[in-house]
Amino acid sequence: MSDNNERYVIGVDFGTLSGRAVVVRVSDGAELGSAVHEYTHGVIEDVLPGTTVRLGPDWALQSPEDWRDVLRIAVPKALAVAGVAPADVIGIGTDFTACTMLPTTADGAPLSELHPDRPHAWPKLWKHHAAQAQADRINALAAERGEPWLPRYGGKISSEWEFAKGLQALEEDPEIYGLAERWIEAADWIIWQLTGVETRNICTAGYKGIHQDGRYPSQDFLGALNAGFAGFTATLGRELARLGGLAGRLTAQAAQWTRLPEGIAVAVGNVDAHVTAAAADAVRPGQMVAIMGTSTCHIMSSGELAEVPGMCGVVRDGIVPGLWGYEAGQSAVGDIFAWFVETSVPAAYSERAAELGISVHDHLTALAERQEVGAHGLVALDWHGGNRSVLVDHNLSGVIVGQTLATAPEDVYRALIEATAFGARVIVETFEASGVPVEEFIVAGGLLKNRFLMQVYSDVLRRPLSVIGSDQGPALGSAIHAAVAAGAYADITEASAAMGKRTSGAYVPDPRRADAYDRLYAEYRHLHDHFADGGLLHRLRAIRNEATA
Amino acid sequence: MSDNNERYVIGVDFGTLSGRAVVVRVSDGAELGSAVHEYTHGVIEDVLPGTTVRLGPDWALQSPEDWRDVLRIAVPKALAVAGVAPADVIGIGTDFTACTMLPTTADGAPLSELHPDRPHAWPKLWKHHAAQAQADRINALAAERGEPWLPRYGGKISSEWEFAKGLQALEEDPEIYGLAERWIEAADWIIWQLTGVETRNICTAGYKGIHQDGRYPSQDFLGALNAGFAGFTATLGRELARLGGLAGRLTAQAAQWTRLPEGIAVAVGNVDAHVTAAAADAVRPGQMVAIMGTSTCHIMSSGELAEVPGMCGVVRDGIVPGLWGYEAGQSAVGDIFAWFVETSVPAAYSERAAELGISVHDHLTALAERQEVGAHGLVALDWHGGNRSVLVDHNLSGVIVGQTLATAPEDVYRALIEATAFGARVIVETFEASGVPVEEFIVAGGLLKNRFLMQVYSDVLRRPLSVIGSDQGPALGSAIHAAVAAGAYADITEASAAMGKRTSGAYVPDPRRADAYDRLYAEYRHLHDHFADGGLLHRLRAIRNEATA
Repeated sequence: MSDNNERYVIGVDFGTLSGRAVVVRVSDGAELGSAVHEYTHGVIEDVLPGTTVRLGPDWALQSPEDWRDVLRIAVPKALAVAGVAPADVIGIGTDFTACTMLPTTADGAPLSELHPDRPHAWPKLWKHHAAQAQADRINALAAERGEPWLPRYGGKISSEWEFAKGLQALEEDPEIYGLAERWIEAADWIIWQLTGVETRNICTAGYKGIHQDGRYPSQDFLGALNAGFAGFTATLGRELARLGGLAGRLTAQAAQWTRLPEGIAVAVGNVDAHVTAAAADAVRPGQMVAIMGTSTCHIMSSGELAEVPGMCGVVRDGIVPGLWGYEAGQSAVGDIFAWFVETSVPAAYSERAAELGISVHDHLTALAERQEVGAHGLVALDWHGGNRSVLVDHNLSGVIVGQTLATAPEDVYRALIEATAFGARVIVETFEASGVPVEEFIVAGGLLKNRFLMQVYSDVLRRPLSVIGSDQGPALGSAIHAAVAAGAYADITEASAAMGKRTSGAYVPDPRRADAYDRLYAEYRHLHDHFADGGLLHRLRAIRNEATA
Repeated sequence: MSDNNERYVIGVDFGTLSGRAVVVRVSDGAELGSAVHEYTHGVIEDVLPGTTVRLGPDWALQSPEDWRDVLRIAVPKALAVAGVAPADVIGIGTDFTACTMLPTTADGAPLSELHPDRPHAWPKLWKHHAAQAQADRINALAAERGEPWLPRYGGKISSEWEFAKGLQALEEDPEIYGLAERWIEAADWIIWQLTGVETRNICTAGYKGIHQDGRYPSQDFLGALNAGFAGFTATLGRELARLGGLAGRLTAQAAQWTRLPEGIAVAVGNVDAHVTAAAADAVRPGQMVAIMGTSTCHIMSSGELAEVPGMCGVVRDGIVPGLWGYEAGQSAVGDIFAWFVETSVPAAYSERAAELGISVHDHLTALAERQEVGAHGLVALDWHGGNRSVLVDHNLSGVIVGQTLATAPEDVYRALIEATAFGARVIVETFEASGVPVEEFIVAGGLLKNRFLMQVYSDVLRRPLSVIGSDQGPALGSAIHAAVAAGAYADITEASAAMGKRTSGAYVPDPRRADAYDRLYAEYRHLHDHFADGGLLHRLRAIRNEATA
């Protein structure tokens, strides 16, 4: 222990391309040091490492060894950067992308390390999209049978989730499926590595594993999908661990990897988006946290259970114990702006940005910011990556209306930013119309750095925006969970209040602009409702798929 | 006379930025030489030449002296290039942009040369758009009173036309209006310069001067617009000269300017688009000539009078004597592709085009050409410059539907090309549905050089395309009119057959692609009909105008 009696916790965020460790002071959440480890194998999309085995379209895998490396490399490095003595660390918490899942033996050995030439033995990353056919069958059968869990997911589960991925493995490689004694979220597998104990967290089980009202989908339902699938839930584990709970104690081996003291508290696993609510001190009912990056994920707790159209899921205790946890999402947000800059901005603009020493995004933003609301004459639908909430339709696509021969790149860029803000407003209004009030809108994630975009959101939503006070929200949230697991705080709410960071009213709406946006939002709703049935957009998609088949 | 007894005619095409003279052999239409003179003053949009008088928004003027320079410079140069002896030239014909009109004294002196500091004294170019308020009033009153001429113009006259421009002059500078003893189309003014005789051609009088069934709009109607406007038609001249007729003989002064023999035939004035039909040997009923450039103009003769929705106009004897001449139009075609290349194509594409030594247009075309029909998943509305035919609504704007994060620039480029082809199909179908069959579709103009675009049109229209055999169609057409005026042929039809140039079946539709386009065209019609009411697009335009006011 150091002289000042301060204690510290470690938060580790396992992302899509890298893992980040951060060292956090228990008393106030100060982030004292962090380190990032880029995965050696990144996202495995083409060939299995060390083999010549090629993957099909839409596959996306990861390597468990990359995750262990984060523990071995990033954690000690963060400690060194922070100048914190390992002996002062009292706990570690982690969060993961989800659903990222893998098949293992009964003692947690990844099948990919036993059968490296078999694609289905490897961990499937969240954005593995090759199980769409299985997801479609699950949704169709669940709708037909009126499965009670279906409305808890806005009427449709995703091809990214556990049952679709598991069913794909069964149907494409039954031998590997038969060898899988466990199917486990990476969020829980990493805890197993740290503690030597298998646990299953309530968050991934609820949002990705269709665990509702104390049970998984019935064997009867699963058997109707495929006779061999009836036993799938037996591989998932039945006891669910509450968030903020103690999963176990750091093993000697994990202590050696991390250079942390053996026996310190290890928190129950968690998901990157959901744990960010703790980092933003936004775990109370009605606090909607929007994690805005390539896509946007909306997380909110509530005392009420409601079936909100198009939400991704509602899970009891899914964010903090004692409340219903809601998740909603916008399929593409930053991805749309990146696509636009990549494909639709002429050389004159990129050259001017280079002259000014700023990014093309910043150059477009500066030009767009000068305009009055509506001066570009455009309205767009932000469906370039489909629409999760509230339409749950990945076969929708983008629309832009109002272009003239005078339309400039910054006009379209601004219209796309506004379209994502209108999309967020649709989500907020849908929650409120379903009896789940949104009291506060808190923003986290990479898009926070665009102050103009934030102001647009505030004006469009007609409400103040709060912002998280950290640019490593998930890792900070995991550290907060670690502090709870270590007993430093009574619960997540108390820990978040002390360690989370949120600035209220960081942006406030301008009434004149908000009024102007009301008119544009009405046009967005017109377009939204016109194209929502998917008729024209689905036909275009079908024509495209036939033409490219 | 030269040894071989060949005779020659001169065609002069007065365009927006320059004038072109071409020397043509009477026997077969061979183009032996041409010369272009760029106007010294170009389009006058900001300040009156030689003054500090500033023009308002949407003004566009020209200088009569620039037109005289074409006679003085381009005609002798073309003769020299052709190596033709002036003595072998038997006639001259001209065509002009329209409606390009000017106020003059009773002997044809332009008021701009007497009052150079008065904007309304200058010739107003066709694209002078500052008389929209006057056009709106003319349309509203004509609709209210049920004026019989209104349906002959698709239900709406343009702000570009004579009555709108004249009324604007009256209301903004009544003194200049009072000094105008004549309001005359430049197409007729230039003939006055060549012959010393005032004539009025039937083409501009019909298409731009609302002359129908032997009369102009009534004094009663004009007086109801503005009491001072009742006498406007008295300044227009009443005798109309038929196309291909002899306007007069070349004066001594004009002979001195042009270096042509005094006394040769001068043909009645004409309009650039309409005279192109003769150049393409396409003046028979059912031959639709599409002059495709920045915009597209459709010209077709027919024995039938019908009120085709959204046409620009139908005029008895308007293309050739004895037939009804139809005009329709697409407000922006090449302009849309130019706008896209200017604003929406990234540096990587322009750099690659430069490496390949081709234009960005050609690079995009090459990439787009490789795709199967519908592979881009897009459909667009080609309304970036509004829609003339068949909706007659300049406040419409462009729409694009179906964009994803994988949409590439060549996808959008192709979708825009296809949108203009779909727009052409709407026009053809509307004519046919109105009882005016389109027997042959003939293309002229600058877009001819894009062979891929032509093939798209053939596939979309499901019919062979004929193409004009000249890249200076208007000037060739004027030369053909000159040959008729000089008596070398009995009429325009006979002269066109001998001197005009048309390749039939230059493009033929591919049945498989045509079938695929039928599906996309159905989606275009869905979008077209949905947005045709203008509701959403007009509201966006209104929001834009308020925001930028």
